[in-house]
Amino acid sequence: MARAPTGESSIARAARIIAAFTSDETSLTVTEIARRTGLHVATASRLIAELAAHGLLARGPGREVRVGVRLWELAARASPTSSLREAAMPYLEDLHAVVGHHAQLGVLDDDDVLFVERLSARDAVINYTQIAGRLPAHISSCGHVLLAYAPPEVRQRVLRRPMRRYTAATITTPDRLDEAWAAVRRQGYAFLPGHVHDDATGIAVPVRNALTEVVAALSIIVPNDEHAPAGLAALLAAARGVTRTLSGRR
Amino acid sequence: MARAPTGESSIARAARIIAAFTSDETSLTVTEIARRTGLHVATASRLIAELAAHGLLARGPGREVRVGVRLWELAARASPTSSLREAAMPYLEDLHAVVGHHAQLGVLDDDDVLFVERLSARDAVINYTQIAGRLPAHISSCGHVLLAYAPPEVRQRVLRRPMRRYTAATITTPDRLDEAWAAVRRQGYAFLPGHVHDDATGIAVPVRNALTEVVAALSIIVPNDEHAPAGLAALLAAARGVTRTLSGRR
Repeated sequence: MARAPTGESSIARAARIIAAFTSDETSLTVTEIARRTGLHVATASRLIAELAAHGLLARGPGREVRVGVRLWELAARASPTSSLREAAMPYLEDLHAVVGHHAQLGVLDDDDVLFVERLSARDAVINYTQIAGRLPAHISSCGHVLLAYAPPEVRQRVLRRPMRRYTAATITTPDRLDEAWAAVRRQGYAFLPGHVHDDATGIAVPVRNALTEVVAALSIIVPNDEHAPAGLAALLAAARGVTRTLSGRR
Repeated sequence: MARAPTGESSIARAARIIAAFTSDETSLTVTEIARRTGLHVATASRLIAELAAHGLLARGPGREVRVGVRLWELAARASPTSSLREAAMPYLEDLHAVVGHHAQLGVLDDDDVLFVERLSARDAVINYTQIAGRLPAHISSCGHVLLAYAPPEVRQRVLRRPMRRYTAATITTPDRLDEAWAAVRRQGYAFLPGHVHDDATGIAVPVRNALTEVVAALSIIVPNDEHAPAGLAALLAAARGVTRTLSGRR
């Protein structure tokens, strides 16, 4: 592997360049990319040209740089989450139609919840998630479900991390988080009124594969009021449907 | 840029490794990746290890290699098609609910139609597309719409390519394809009964941005029978909705 003087390979630098883009900043100048990655402008410029030659990045009319359609295509068509998304989509649509707010599918990645699919009503209650967005596992109902069934070493790691407070209801101590996970395992779902935002309740349930391992969490976000629990039965039924599809039993 | 003896950079090789995966083969051995990319096993193995170190590839329990969740996340969150998909999704859902078969969104990429979103009924009429899948532009209703409004040089390029026949109805000559594009521009939609599969009709309409440029095509796939035209009005209305959302006018 060819190394630059700093010992970093061109693949490592390319990975940092791609990671410089965010959902809010899908278009960046070469100078801005160099600033964010800590690379010299000349180095960034050369790597960007090569990534663009393979369609992994693209140049806009004003020379601004974007993620290439080809990169999205390669990543999306063979993504490990594509079969999960495909299995879940009809149930997400039904949930979204019946519950009328947000319906989403999350997986655990690097101690965060990564949202791999989401359907939202235009006038839905507030929600911080987006497709390919992340939330800390301690505040999200999907995170509670995914960690409740995660290996003990993953749970221990999360318990040792600082837990940021979002609202008065956010759980921020290891003891209470551990109790919350035990409640999820006992009840089969997570119900978190106002943990991320005062006005929203997250409800999440586990999705299992053919080996009954929890591979994802399905959740709805509804207004934080007395009607919040009404969607739970539909959510539990939807998760059974996704599990059945994943197991090849239709 | 560091070069191997063949003159190919490690970024070029990494791009080829990622392109070795397909929607049907999301998991490959190192040996198979080496075979597909023409790299030595030792070279492939070293590059795979480095891509895996950055989460761009992942190793399964049996040492098989997959596309990493991190690569999907980076590509999906900043994808140039993400705002288009987000604008179109509520309308795709409505179309899918009303028409009940396939509803999909395609963009032109490298003379093919690349499908960036699709909603399908489980018992829907046959359809060859999938998310992040491609179809040749000459057979697909989305392709007809996208090319009808494409720059003349793109149309000329497509007219010079060989056109594979899929069914008796497939257009395979430059003259007839050029006529079909003129019909799309005159009517404002493409209506292709049995061009991809005898039993299916594709109907597609243009989606425009705020500058009235055609940036995508919205299509439905319905059974190839006398009821096929019934979805056209809903499709035209949906495309107007997506255009309105893209233009920031709700």
